[in-house]
Amino acid sequence: MIIVMRTDATPEEIVAITGRLEEAGAMAQVSAGTKRTVIGVIGSVDTVRSIPWETLPGVERRVSLTAPLRFVSREAQPEDTIIEIGDIKIGGGTLTVIAGPCAVEGRDQLFETGKAVKAAGAHILRGDAFKPRTSPYSFQGLGKEGLELLSEARDTLGMPFVAEVIDPRDVEMVASHADIVRIGSRNMANFPLLKEVGRQPKPVQLKRGFTSTIDEWLNAAEYIYKEGNHHIILVERGIRTFETASRNTLDITAVPIVQSVSHLPVFVDPSHSSGKRSLVPPLTKAAVAVGADGIMVDVHPHPDQALVDGNQALLPADFQELMGDVRRLADAVGRPLA
Amino acid sequence: MIIVMRTDATPEEIVAITGRLEEAGAMAQVSAGTKRTVIGVIGSVDTVRSIPWETLPGVERRVSLTAPLRFVSREAQPEDTIIEIGDIKIGGGTLTVIAGPCAVEGRDQLFETGKAVKAAGAHILRGDAFKPRTSPYSFQGLGKEGLELLSEARDTLGMPFVAEVIDPRDVEMVASHADIVRIGSRNMANFPLLKEVGRQPKPVQLKRGFTSTIDEWLNAAEYIYKEGNHHIILVERGIRTFETASRNTLDITAVPIVQSVSHLPVFVDPSHSSGKRSLVPPLTKAAVAVGADGIMVDVHPHPDQALVDGNQALLPADFQELMGDVRRLADAVGRPLA
Amino acid sequence: MIIVMRTDATPEEIVAITGRLEEAGAMAQVSAGTKRTVIGVIGSVDTVRSIPWETLPGVERRVSLTAPLRFVSREAQPEDTIIEIGDIKIGGGTLTVIAGPCAVEGRDQLFETGKAVKAAGAHILRGDAFKPRTSPYSFQGLGKEGLELLSEARDTLGMPFVAEVIDPRDVEMVASHADIVRIGSRNMANFPLLKEVGRQPKPVQLKRGFTSTIDEWLNAAEYIYKEGNHHIILVERGIRTFETASRNTLDITAVPIVQSVSHLPVFVDPSHSSGKRSLVPPLTKAAVAVGADGIMVDVHPHPDQALVDGNQALLPADFQELMGDVRRLADAVGRPLA
Amino acid sequence: MIIVMRTDATPEEIVAITGRLEEAGAMAQVSAGTKRTVIGVIGSVDTVRSIPWETLPGVERRVSLTAPLRFVSREAQPEDTIIEIGDIKIGGGTLTVIAGPCAVEGRDQLFETGKAVKAAGAHILRGDAFKPRTSPYSFQGLGKEGLELLSEARDTLGMPFVAEVIDPRDVEMVASHADIVRIGSRNMANFPLLKEVGRQPKPVQLKRGFTSTIDEWLNAAEYIYKEGNHHIILVERGIRTFETASRNTLDITAVPIVQSVSHLPVFVDPSHSSGKRSLVPPLTKAAVAVGADGIMVDVHPHPDQALVDGNQALLPADFQELMGDVRRLADAVGRPLA
Repeated sequence: MIIVMRTDATPEEIVAITGRLEEAGAMAQVSAGTKRTVIGVIGSVDTVRSIPWETLPGVERRVSLTAPLRFVSREAQPEDTIIEIGDIKIGGGTLTVIAGPCAVEGRDQLFETGKAVKAAGAHILRGDAFKPRTSPYSFQGLGKEGLELLSEARDTLGMPFVAEVIDPRDVEMVASHADIVRIGSRNMANFPLLKEVGRQPKPVQLKRGFTSTIDEWLNAAEYIYKEGNHHIILVERGIRTFETASRNTLDITAVPIVQSVSHLPVFVDPSHSSGKRSLVPPLTKAAVAVGADGIMVDVHPHPDQALVDGNQALLPADFQELMGDVRRLADAVGRPLA
Repeated sequence: MIIVMRTDATPEEIVAITGRLEEAGAMAQVSAGTKRTVIGVIGSVDTVRSIPWETLPGVERRVSLTAPLRFVSREAQPEDTIIEIGDIKIGGGTLTVIAGPCAVEGRDQLFETGKAVKAAGAHILRGDAFKPRTSPYSFQGLGKEGLELLSEARDTLGMPFVAEVIDPRDVEMVASHADIVRIGSRNMANFPLLKEVGRQPKPVQLKRGFTSTIDEWLNAAEYIYKEGNHHIILVERGIRTFETASRNTLDITAVPIVQSVSHLPVFVDPSHSSGKRSLVPPLTKAAVAVGADGIMVDVHPHPDQALVDGNQALLPADFQELMGDVRRLADAVGRPLA
Repeated sequence: MIIVMRTDATPEEIVAITGRLEEAGAMAQVSAGTKRTVIGVIGSVDTVRSIPWETLPGVERRVSLTAPLRFVSREAQPEDTIIEIGDIKIGGGTLTVIAGPCAVEGRDQLFETGKAVKAAGAHILRGDAFKPRTSPYSFQGLGKEGLELLSEARDTLGMPFVAEVIDPRDVEMVASHADIVRIGSRNMANFPLLKEVGRQPKPVQLKRGFTSTIDEWLNAAEYIYKEGNHHIILVERGIRTFETASRNTLDITAVPIVQSVSHLPVFVDPSHSSGKRSLVPPLTKAAVAVGADGIMVDVHPHPDQALVDGNQALLPADFQELMGDVRRLADAVGRPLA
Repeated sequence: MIIVMRTDATPEEIVAITGRLEEAGAMAQVSAGTKRTVIGVIGSVDTVRSIPWETLPGVERRVSLTAPLRFVSREAQPEDTIIEIGDIKIGGGTLTVIAGPCAVEGRDQLFETGKAVKAAGAHILRGDAFKPRTSPYSFQGLGKEGLELLSEARDTLGMPFVAEVIDPRDVEMVASHADIVRIGSRNMANFPLLKEVGRQPKPVQLKRGFTSTIDEWLNAAEYIYKEGNHHIILVERGIRTFETASRNTLDITAVPIVQSVSHLPVFVDPSHSSGKRSLVPPLTKAAVAVGADGIMVDVHPHPDQALVDGNQALLPADFQELMGDVRRLADAVGRPLA
């Protein structure tokens, strides 16, 4: 950490800062420039970090040099985290494909989709039983019944599944069914929920908040990791910007940034970011080429009957065709399917 | 709702749309323009709204004309909602002042602040026992002990208080102490939490998500209202933009927009939006002049010792001076203190 | 400036950096922390600033401590700039009111508006002859004829006027008529145009780019100042955000920020930021209360006939009523009308 | 166009709207719904579009159905525009590679880079002689001398070049040297400059404003097209968002959106969007996979000596390696190099 003093800071003010640093258990290195003095802090600890330095007389601002990440950074663990789910290895240079309906709407819809995506080469099934919706009058998911259908599909198809949890009181129930539990975009900063999923053993998929910085996203992963669950899969799913031509703006740049800063695998969801079926294939291809560890795609056999997000769902035949491109591109960038 | 057809839509596609509308219980009015056909939907109901029209052949897009708000809009209730807490009347043309520390840190800090803001003319005390923090290593609040201190302060000072709740499992506990329970900015789209506060009787303060549209904010209020709790106070607290010179960008325009669209009172929080002490007085004055129903200001007797957000807290003397300006401006815009 | 080294930087890399700094004419102060080394730069000059430090081995990032503003900052000139136009003094604690039509559309429209805003107490007339429009098929302004009408209105009404210039080749012509020349929001980073207005003697109104940071805005002012023209009036007019309920989001916080960083006067344009008539009065009041040095408001006698931005224009009677509120609020915050 | 009336609009207000439409040469189709009336406009022309409908009594808002694009849309021209520069064919399913230094700094730097990118397979050289810079104290380009060096490089290397123009008074000079003239991101809405490049015969590269919507970008292309120049190459280069981990957020979704709406070729600039060397290779690969018509990459032989944007420049060897990936990916998506 560095504390930058105002140009008119007095010697007394500078001494007060160094004193306060020493009280807090850190050392100060004072550099007097031609215009202003800066104070380097050696031994930056949480107590130093939590002091509101900018309220102290003479201080202009403080500059943080190190993010307060203890576990999820590459500095903490240089090698990639690899998460095993049965035979599937997520992370470490492979490409994992997750596909399925946005929401479970019934047995037929789920099984028809599940068979199709499995046949096309998807590794993991998606399907939600709890949906966070902007309006209270929109379909909110089938709940427990949806999870039971998903479990049945898993057993029948031989395919693990991921499902969202939105309430800390439901974590145990969702985790007892799902192979991976998901924290959705709107809940990325729901800290009680993060703590709860951190305390159970199933891998956790953590979507980026559509209005969260990469730094906040990694801190959310830190909440989960700190509770004991180290199997975290990050998912970029688009951020909110001024552009309204797509639902969100897929932040494809986030993939290589996260991969350089963290050892956790990072996926891309081209369906929720774009909100539009015709945009899903090109964005999926971009995600594979940029080096994502996986992709997660919405597929629905009858999108015009879908209760949630039908506009963005691929048809099974579209998905099958897309998987041909996915394989060619994965091959071109040297990333074998998981 | 209007359904806009593509310029190359066929007559068969148009007929298919009108058929689907009638199945869903609505009427279609077809207007054939020189370039394209548009279909007006009469009798727009939830079932019509939930159909993913843009997946149907020939459809370019749909245009929603009415927000799906049933209760919190001015159309549903033309007159202002007025919320009574003891003698204080919130809404309906008055100005209510809430002040206090961001977080309760201990008895002395709380009581010293409470006495000062009460003496300066604040109506309601703020102080949180549960704090959602970006990093798991930051101070997370005193929890139940904090609520007990707040209750003691309320009884001693004769001043109701508002406190945040971040976990649906804590709603009952927080509501049993606080006079108003708050949903913070990060939890605006935490729907299980919204439902839970909607089922208890204490008034609810609903902060705007710092990355939420006004429309999403009103839908969040609708979640609470629908569960039976009609005493909702909206709080604008700044939105996330590209500008980094202030912590967030106070969306002062949101105040008159919300007041025209909804009957609920809307407050401004100049402290959390700016993140900087020197910006709080001018923004508070702007909030009063723009016609906000109330303001909520962070005050701390020793900001340099604060465990949370010390940089933005006013000193008690600053707050007292600001209250002089607040009174003059409230008078100038004809808005008496609550 | 500070150069932050990577945690794995070698002693050789650190020596290379200090050598490079000394070559560039600066001094280096090396602080070795527990995790990483930071290098303070003493004597930061343009040559040091322009080196792409982050390309050098071992460097993580550089941190700039001082904005490269030479003239427009408070450090360069602590006292407020006051600009005199006839008897009107802009800046230094007063409130100046500019009003008139967005675009000059004809003599009747201009004179009717001019008389009305003068009678209501406006100091300066606005009216544009050149309009930058998103579509080439929209009205582009009356050009030279519009400027001649504005000059005639100035002489008849005894009221100076401000008009926009959008082409460096037109600066001389516009400046020969107008009392203040304006750089519009879309041209804030049009550097040839900034230089050209900097070389002529009339005061310049510099609107903030609706997607520019405050720092970029002050740098644009620096372009003008550097060429010799020191009479610059800044205008906040809303920024582009994700919120679509208003045309732009008025960044009211920018007013006190700019006033603390720069000595130049800063105005608010509530008309272009909101894009909607009903929002103009509350935002104007907020602007006065926040401490703006002036306001600029669109007025049109027949908004429904306006060729540009009719949706946001106040009627003359609305403006007159608003001026009553403006006077009361200016009085409440101790800011006399210019 | 559709005009949506307020729920409380009177029959007289509705009649007034239809009368006004007929005066303006359009036909009105009135649909009376259960809650409100909407008026479909048949024969939407510029005069109808320019009326400020929202100022008329009873009108809630208007909804535009067709963008006012006459020339650059797919509706106007279904087949791809192909631009020929010597043997190179830009657009129509190929991939064109542009590479070179951000700014021309001298003969050695330019020729060394030019030879390297040519050898690696680039089709077109980039290098700017005029640079728009945020600060007036940054390097502004070599001007005419830079253009002469670029012309010499073109002749020596047998490689066309693209260079930016920032002043309408320089268009003739730049166009007399360059094979393609560029409008940079900051000048996308500099309409006099757009008109000027539209009146000369060299192809024009039009970068998206980093804060412009896709719709505004296509309207800017329309300004050029309307003046007679139909050889326009669009370049996505990242947009400004709240995320600060990269310089801008590359809007990769814009590529397929533009390709569906317009017949003009669209390129991606991974260097300026990311601002960081290590991010350029993954983003380049994403651009090829998403189906861009071309890429434009900064290369510099000595980035640490670069006067502009050295942090984002690839070394020649990096670029050569990247070209191997580019070829493999272009092959995988069936897009031959131009």
